[in-house]
Parts: sequence; structure tokens; C-alpha cells
Amino acid sequence: MLDVCLLGTAGMMPLPNRWLTSCIFRFNGECLLIDCGEGTQVALKEAGFSSNPVSVICLTHYHADHVSGLPGFLLSMGNSDRTEPITIIGPKGVERVVSSLRVIAPELPFEINFIELTEADEYIELLGFHIHAFKVNHNVMCYGYSIEIPRKGRFNVESAKALGIPVKLWNPLQKGNEVEYEGKIYSPDMVMGEARRGLKVTYCTDTRPTSSLESAASGSDLLICEGMYAEDDKLEKAKQNKHMTFYEAANIARKANVGELWLTHFSPSLTGHKHYMPRVKKIFDNAHLGEDGKFLELDFAEE
Amino acid sequence: MLDVCLLGTAGMMPLPNRWLTSCIFRFNGECLLIDCGEGTQVALKEAGFSSNPVSVICLTHYHADHVSGLPGFLLSMGNSDRTEPITIIGPKGVERVVSSLRVIAPELPFEINFIELTEADEYIELLGFHIHAFKVNHNVMCYGYSIEIPRKGRFNVESAKALGIPVKLWNPLQKGNEVEYEGKIYSPDMVMGEARRGLKVTYCTDTRPTSSLESAASGSDLLICEGMYAEDDKLEKAKQNKHMTFYEAANIARKANVGELWLTHFSPSLTGHKHYMPRVKKIFDNAHLGEDGKFLELDFAEE
Repeated sequence: MLDVCLLGTAGMMPLPNRWLTSCIFRFNGECLLIDCGEGTQVALKEAGFSSNPVSVICLTHYHADHVSGLPGFLLSMGNSDRTEPITIIGPKGVERVVSSLRVIAPELPFEINFIELTEADEYIELLGFHIHAFKVNHNVMCYGYSIEIPRKGRFNVESAKALGIPVKLWNPLQKGNEVEYEGKIYSPDMVMGEARRGLKVTYCTDTRPTSSLESAASGSDLLICEGMYAEDDKLEKAKQNKHMTFYEAANIARKANVGELWLTHFSPSLTGHKHYMPRVKKIFDNAHLGEDGKFLELDFAEE
Repeated sequence: MLDVCLLGTAGMMPLPNRWLTSCIFRFNGECLLIDCGEGTQVALKEAGFSSNPVSVICLTHYHADHVSGLPGFLLSMGNSDRTEPITIIGPKGVERVVSSLRVIAPELPFEINFIELTEADEYIELLGFHIHAFKVNHNVMCYGYSIEIPRKGRFNVESAKALGIPVKLWNPLQKGNEVEYEGKIYSPDMVMGEARRGLKVTYCTDTRPTSSLESAASGSDLLICEGMYAEDDKLEKAKQNKHMTFYEAANIARKANVGELWLTHFSPSLTGHKHYMPRVKKIFDNAHLGEDGKFLELDFAEE
């Protein structure tokens, strides 16, 4: 139902065989991309996605490693004959930053709508994606994103019959619409059970650990979280550069009670990533190193 | 003496396993880069170069596939602790375009000097590179570049002795300096032979064939030239999009009497590149398909 693909796992600069951190979500034929560093359009192709169906781009912040691939990506969307508008969501200045980068992509065959984030928490619904943008703590204004696919409750046939609701009204009620019929008003809550557990993925780079992240990630099926550093002596550097260690990310995953953790946004100086995982797994067992192209298909639970 | 490395060979968009067209020249420990599309910094690393010694960047024009990698590249130079200034050369608007892209790379630990090209032919000498920028014919203002390493004539020991020039003056004269000694003036032309053949490489994308290219490329050891299309039915498209076919590039190589031709800037739709080379070689025998990382070390001829 919801496909998640981590396109790259590098922080700071793209490396041979490690693309910059970005992530794509696919639901119901529509795609949402978070971040678009240099090379993202190649990473997308390598992961088997095309740029055309990307309708929403969420930017965490405006450091080059998260946004430098945007003008080339927009051009490639244009070259693939996209004419439908796209929406770009980002912190304060999103229109100014994107327009400035478009000095080399001035003509596009589609419109761009901008949503500028200003509050600490913002909730946006687009094409079935329920997006929660939450402010985190980096050295510039930066947001994390939770992407949710909610799930309605079950349709209660017994209630519908007991209330004598005509069968032809069942479908609109199931879709959440109120219906007036022969002078009577029927509302969905008359026949729909409690909303069931949906799907939720939280993506967060670059930041120090924050309560906003812990709370936004709460109960996510998957948390994709930065782990810029892993070495013992790098905690101070993490604090200074407003990043996290693997262990800090694992702590958040544990506290937020997520299903699974993928680490990403690795420092270019980091080597032997696997070496640090036993310590990470002691904090949160279902933790994994992000890898370019790492893919997960999330389905609603059977119930 | 002069190293040339074609970093990528793609036109329009970077592809998995084919970087965008750009080229690096190394002479005397200094590097000059022509064009900097998305991914150029990774292509450089893959080709074994580091970004730090790049002191000159020449831009042909401001289409994204030739310049979108610039902000990330500048940041990576900064991250490698470069503090020496760099020079960026490009058509009208170079400072405006680069400054606009620097919205995501506002702070750099080095200065950028700009040289804006306005004439049809411009000659610039920087760090031993003799650069000839020449206007070509694309759908926006676009320049090709010839990079030359000139070579002085031989020092004529017999003349120096016959003229009674003291031995301690030989070195400064050889370096091209005029010297005054004991009331007499000695000039290099008294002891230096005719300038010998130097090294010359011409790089040109994106353009229709032009007499300016033919004349600038004249006698180059190597011509790196765009060949956007190769298929029989693509000549009209080449004319319309102001690009060239393989055969048009080969014709220029033949007329300009260059030593060797490398084709590059291939359309993403082109496949089976080799298939077209027999016809290319009928026009100009020493023609080769450019490949990402293709490298040539040019030495002064023995003479």
C-alpha cells in the first residue's frame, strides 16, 4: 500500500556509490519525495522510479546536500512531459530558494505550488498523504516529516440494516460523505466503526535529538533517522554540528516505540558502519543501516 | 605535461553510469574544469581527482546540465579547506547565475573572481593555461574553449657565447626576462629560438557546427566535441535544438586538422553508440567515443 525507498544515505556530499540522503514514498500511484540533493534524479532511476509521478516534494532545510539536485530534477520532470502542477513544501523561504535555484531551470511545463512551513507543527493533506511537518534542532531552520496513510473503520452492516439505511446510500457513507435522502440525513458515523491503525513513516535529518522528533515519530512503522556519526569520540562533534550519533537515533527509536529504524545521512568520514551496529541494537533491536535503494512495502495489518 | 580527463559524457540529464559532460585539465599541479553539471564532484572523485586544486572553472553556458553541480562542488572545495581564490569564467551573467545558485552555498572560505565573456573571441591567461573562449551557436549564449600550453623556443648556447652574454644571465633570459648588466641590456630574443609547438585541446558543447569552432580547434592535439545525435533521422532535431550529429563533429575535426576527436554529450535517448562509429571514422579516422573517465596525458613533442 505504501512503498518507501531510501534513495541515498550520504550526508554532506555525494560519494561514488553513496547518494545523498533522500527518500521517496509511493501511495496509490502518486509519489512524494523528501529532500533532493545532487544526484537524486539518478538515484531515483537506479531505484526503479521515474520522476514524472512525483507530485509533492518536502524539503527539510536548505543546505546544499538536501536541495542541490532540485533544478535538474525539475527539468527532468519537464522533459518527461509532466504538465500537472507539483507542490513543494519547506521551511521559511521555500519560494525564494527554489526560485533562486531555477536560474538554470527557468522554463517548466508545469506549475509549482509552494507551502511554507512557519509553525512548529504543521499538518498537510495531499493526494492521500497525511503529512506532519515538525520543527527540529539544526543550525538552520529544519523540519522532519511524518507521512501517514490513515485507515477508516469498518463499515458496520448490522448497524446499517438496523437503522434501515437504504443500500444505495452505503457506498457514499463508506466514503465519508453525509447523505440526504427522502428528507432524512445520514452521516458516516452512523455506520462506520472506529478508525483502524493506518501506516506511518517518519523521516528526520538533520538535527540533534528533540522531543518534537520523539513525539512525531511515536508509533511509526518505520523511522528513518540521521546517524551522522558513530565513533565514540564524535559526540561532541555531533553536538557542535547539530547532528546525531547512531546511539542517539536508536534511543529515539526506542522511546518513540517505532517498528523499525533505518539509519542514514552518514558522515563522509565514517567507515566500517556495521562495526557499530551491535551497540546500536542493544539500545533498539530492530535497527538497520540505511542503504541506497533500501525498500519497504508497508501494508495495513489484517484485522 | 597536460592531463585531460573527460569526466562525463551525458547530455541533458545525468544517467546511472553516465555523468554529465565536463572535462578537467591538469598542468603544473593546477586544475581547470570546464562545466560542472549535477554529479561532477562525484565524477571527479571517481576519476581520481580531488576538488581542492581546481582553480579555474570555465562554463560554456547556463543550461542546468552544465552548471547544476556548481553549488555542491564549491561547498566540497570549501570542506576540503581551500582558502585560495578561484576564478569562474562564463558568458554574460556569470556572476548573477553563480550568486543565484549560491543561495544554498552562501558561505565559502575562499573568494570567487568572475570573468564575464562578452566578445566573440576572448583570450585569458591563468596559472599557465592559455584559454581561448570562442562564441558558438546554441539556443542560448554559449562558448567553446581551447586550452593551450605554449612552449618556448630553444635556448641557443652558440648565440649566447658569440654575443658574449655572461652565463649567469642565461637563466633569466631563458625565462623570458630582459636583463640589464654592466650598462648593457640583454633581451630574450637574442638567445631564444622560435616558439616551438605547444599543446592544445579544444572542448565544445553545445552548438551547431560553426566556423568559429573550426578555426579555434585548428591544429588541436585533441578536440572534445559534442555529438548529441547519431541516428540518420536526427539531423533535423539537431538543427532544431542547436546540437550536432556525430558526423558533423567528425567533419569539423577533419577540417580543423586535429590530432584526435572524442565525441561526448550524448542524448539520453541514444543507444548503441559504437554502431555509428564506422561512418564517423570514414569522415575522420582518429575519432573515438568519449567515455566517462577517458584520460589523455599530452607531452611536448621531442624536438
